[in-house]
Amino acid sequence: MANSRFEYVKQFESSDSLLPNTWIVIRIDGRGFTKLCAKYNFAKPNDRRALDLMNAAAQAVMTELPDIAVAYGVSDEYSKLITTIASTFTSYYVHLWPQFFPDNPLSPPLPSFDGRAVCYPSVQNLRDYMSWRQVDCHINNLYNTTFWSLIQLGGFDAKEAEKSLAGTLSADKNEILFSKFKINYNNEPEIYKKGSVVFRDYELVEPGSHSVSETIDNIAEPVQQSKTQEEKDKKRRNKACVVVEHLDIIKDDFWDRRPWLLSNKPGKVPKQA
Amino acid sequence: MANSRFEYVKQFESSDSLLPNTWIVIRIDGRGFTKLCAKYNFAKPNDRRALDLMNAAAQAVMTELPDIAVAYGVSDEYSKLITTIASTFTSYYVHLWPQFFPDNPLSPPLPSFDGRAVCYPSVQNLRDYMSWRQVDCHINNLYNTTFWSLIQLGGFDAKEAEKSLAGTLSADKNEILFSKFKINYNNEPEIYKKGSVVFRDYELVEPGSHSVSETIDNIAEPVQQSKTQEEKDKKRRNKACVVVEHLDIIKDDFWDRRPWLLSNKPGKVPKQA
Amino acid sequence: MANSRFEYVKQFESSDSLLPNTWIVIRIDGRGFTKLCAKYNFAKPNDRRALDLMNAAAQAVMTELPDIAVAYGVSDEYSKLITTIASTFTSYYVHLWPQFFPDNPLSPPLPSFDGRAVCYPSVQNLRDYMSWRQVDCHINNLYNTTFWSLIQLGGFDAKEAEKSLAGTLSADKNEILFSKFKINYNNEPEIYKKGSVVFRDYELVEPGSHSVSETIDNIAEPVQQSKTQEEKDKKRRNKACVVVEHLDIIKDDFWDRRPWLLSNKPGKVPKQA
Amino acid sequence: MANSRFEYVKQFESSDSLLPNTWIVIRIDGRGFTKLCAKYNFAKPNDRRALDLMNAAAQAVMTELPDIAVAYGVSDEYSKLITTIASTFTSYYVHLWPQFFPDNPLSPPLPSFDGRAVCYPSVQNLRDYMSWRQVDCHINNLYNTTFWSLIQLGGFDAKEAEKSLAGTLSADKNEILFSKFKINYNNEPEIYKKGSVVFRDYELVEPGSHSVSETIDNIAEPVQQSKTQEEKDKKRRNKACVVVEHLDIIKDDFWDRRPWLLSNKPGKVPKQA
Repeated sequence: MANSRFEYVKQFESSDSLLPNTWIVIRIDGRGFTKLCAKYNFAKPNDRRALDLMNAAAQAVMTELPDIAVAYGVSDEYSKLITTIASTFTSYYVHLWPQFFPDNPLSPPLPSFDGRAVCYPSVQNLRDYMSWRQVDCHINNLYNTTFWSLIQLGGFDAKEAEKSLAGTLSADKNEILFSKFKINYNNEPEIYKKGSVVFRDYELVEPGSHSVSETIDNIAEPVQQSKTQEEKDKKRRNKACVVVEHLDIIKDDFWDRRPWLLSNKPGKVPKQA
Repeated sequence: MANSRFEYVKQFESSDSLLPNTWIVIRIDGRGFTKLCAKYNFAKPNDRRALDLMNAAAQAVMTELPDIAVAYGVSDEYSKLITTIASTFTSYYVHLWPQFFPDNPLSPPLPSFDGRAVCYPSVQNLRDYMSWRQVDCHINNLYNTTFWSLIQLGGFDAKEAEKSLAGTLSADKNEILFSKFKINYNNEPEIYKKGSVVFRDYELVEPGSHSVSETIDNIAEPVQQSKTQEEKDKKRRNKACVVVEHLDIIKDDFWDRRPWLLSNKPGKVPKQA
Repeated sequence: MANSRFEYVKQFESSDSLLPNTWIVIRIDGRGFTKLCAKYNFAKPNDRRALDLMNAAAQAVMTELPDIAVAYGVSDEYSKLITTIASTFTSYYVHLWPQFFPDNPLSPPLPSFDGRAVCYPSVQNLRDYMSWRQVDCHINNLYNTTFWSLIQLGGFDAKEAEKSLAGTLSADKNEILFSKFKINYNNEPEIYKKGSVVFRDYELVEPGSHSVSETIDNIAEPVQQSKTQEEKDKKRRNKACVVVEHLDIIKDDFWDRRPWLLSNKPGKVPKQA
Repeated sequence: MANSRFEYVKQFESSDSLLPNTWIVIRIDGRGFTKLCAKYNFAKPNDRRALDLMNAAAQAVMTELPDIAVAYGVSDEYSKLITTIASTFTSYYVHLWPQFFPDNPLSPPLPSFDGRAVCYPSVQNLRDYMSWRQVDCHINNLYNTTFWSLIQLGGFDAKEAEKSLAGTLSADKNEILFSKFKINYNNEPEIYKKGSVVFRDYELVEPGSHSVSETIDNIAEPVQQSKTQEEKDKKRRNKACVVVEHLDIIKDDFWDRRPWLLSNKPGKVPKQA
């Protein structure tokens, strides 16, 4: 690198490391997606192709960045980590678009995403974060499903729909859907009700069959794995499929049966994989 | 938003504002571009289409994010700013790729970029940062041009080329290029020697004709423009062309003739624009 | 240092540098001083001895930490800088206490202070910060003087005093002081009305006689002084008196006559000093 | 507060919160204590009065800031927390000085301290931090004891002592102490060998008698205690003695017998306390 008298400017760079040994959550948000939904005529309240495109992009990101499944020990530089993930996600989003919207080519302004990173110190904090997102998804989807049913099936305009939903509880919305439109909310697609969780898939574990305390110890210990073990883990991770599921991630069952999600140790790759 | 007991997790988010009234520089870097250059057979030492694609993406980003030209007063949230720019840049890069490489379609792993933001408190610091980058560009390009000439024209292998350049000064490399390969480095394309600078173009100003002290005052004062003035400025900015040039940005001339770059006030839009 | 397996914990330390080339303001606040004022019977609304003790501690801090006068280029580590200043201030505060309160010895809980650092990128920002504090001082002191006059001289209780001042402007408070208590606020001691500013004192400069643009250039340039010049500056700084004054720091005059405050260059030491 | 046009400067303040639910360690260091040791003739290698003064100041800080024992959930503002602790520590250090050095009054420059805060996400990280400090203490004290024995008892000068210790292991230093000076390092005072740990003292617990998993759950759960329970805890904490001990804090025993240190729940106050 050139040794010019201008190089003093490097001292203005500030470090922005993330706290090690915490669960780093990277949140990616579409920018100005209200306009984008209108521009490309996304279906209301949910556009299956658009959701599938998001999931395909997420799946591709996880396949390309194998450390993500774990969100633990990935990287210590904040800006590099979040811009990498936002950029990789955008790259696949734009690249995969024609597969999901073959008759609807992209034109400027193009879709883009912003992101931010948050560190969660304990497993409980991380699971509470995930639970919060899934509760949010459920509440919003029940509202949107009822709101758009009132408009699309009930002939309401947006103001009337909003007004008739003001102050209603979940039970009220379920009732409106069923009595007015014969819609049983429970029968709505899981992807809309629960959102999507993307993870590396291994053989499920019988709850109770693995030692939870062992898992916790592995987390607490500053893991200094041997290079050989790391290589083995890497190979197993590469063999695993990255899947998109729509499961309950609030209850223990999801986590108990997939101990690899919190232990940072790859599970057993199924025979057929 | 759902009011669940999980919401306490919001308190883990930390603020990451950038210091106001400073020059915010966002640096975008290609990730793993050595591999990407090889995969798509980019020409050595410079691939004009690849550079043009980068510039087209930068131009599109600046057109879409009108506050960038100034890199001042843009935003105060660090992660949102850099991920937005990295994501928008990536979006255009992938979208515009087929125009620049029509016979060379993208395939996974796709190109992606990381980024970081640095705040520079004074005009001098900002200009020194830009000068540093341009000096770096020159030094690297002279080295690479000589290195690849030795390989492509002189039949050296990489080790031999590296060895014969070890310890050479600029004058030595110029001499090697000229005596061995009849290449006058001064005649190399400006885009390779100077890099590219992308900015909104207005009518050039005669150096000395505008008041520098006025400009400096405008910077020092916490500008609280009236809404009307802001609207007018916005319109003028939208009328201006975003251009890609390969000029000397170390000398005063570049900045003196384009006072809008440091004053955060749009210049005069030329008639033909 | 011991090379134990525990040393990995060092990676949890995060850097916290302050942006170079900015004006670093360190604000020191007394903790729980309402209680402390009551415990040691500080006079209301202003206790001259208590203010003098604060100033003596500030003066001692500046004498001991010669880089402070300038608040520029001092240090780049945030926590080290603020804790050093808070600790040095506390040290002198406790040490000097008996000189100011000879009949009122300290007892636990002892006085303590907290602090924080803020970076201001431009001279204008710095001066606005100082102006803000002095405006605040004036507004608060006028209020407190009137409030305590109503109580101490007018026989009001706290609630009555508060009520009769609600919604009053400065002119109203001046009027109350004068008509009810024959107090001309303008004649109140400067230390109460203007606060105290502590700085190294050199020969005053005739406004207009020194080149402001030169000063500004010195600020903008990343000053890489020769070691010899630094040594000379250090000696001159050590010869200068640290004084406590109660001047108007909002108007230009204060700064114009003391160019060393913003130029980071010591002034001329007066003969008698 | 005055509503002046200067108040915009508040936007330059940046937030600096510490990650919640982590173990916050505040490190306080004496500034320029080599000079201070010389000025007040502290004994070499250890001055008991100086150590006792440090411990007395630490004890007073813990008594005054009851949240410290736990270093958990104390505060979320970094600069306020560390300056408060550095300032309170300094305050007691200066105040208590005459009790420990009655014939050696303080004079400027006065002692001062700097500090910094680090967050440790897990109990294991926290214990490893503490272990690291104690290992460091042992290594340094063994070195210093041997070094000063060579000088004070062996007639070496500093260079000779340094040279004869270069490359020696612990066993070698033990051997030198014993064979040359009949000093059995194991018989040295615990305060020098192990350092001092200051904590609130409650009835010791029989290891194994309390549920560790319960403790861990209490840590993992975002504790939202009822106000009543908090009040009760506060009272119990105020009744507890803050003690200074010189124990092994690397082995489990210290922590197992004092579960309140990691559980953030006060223990049982002994009868006699």
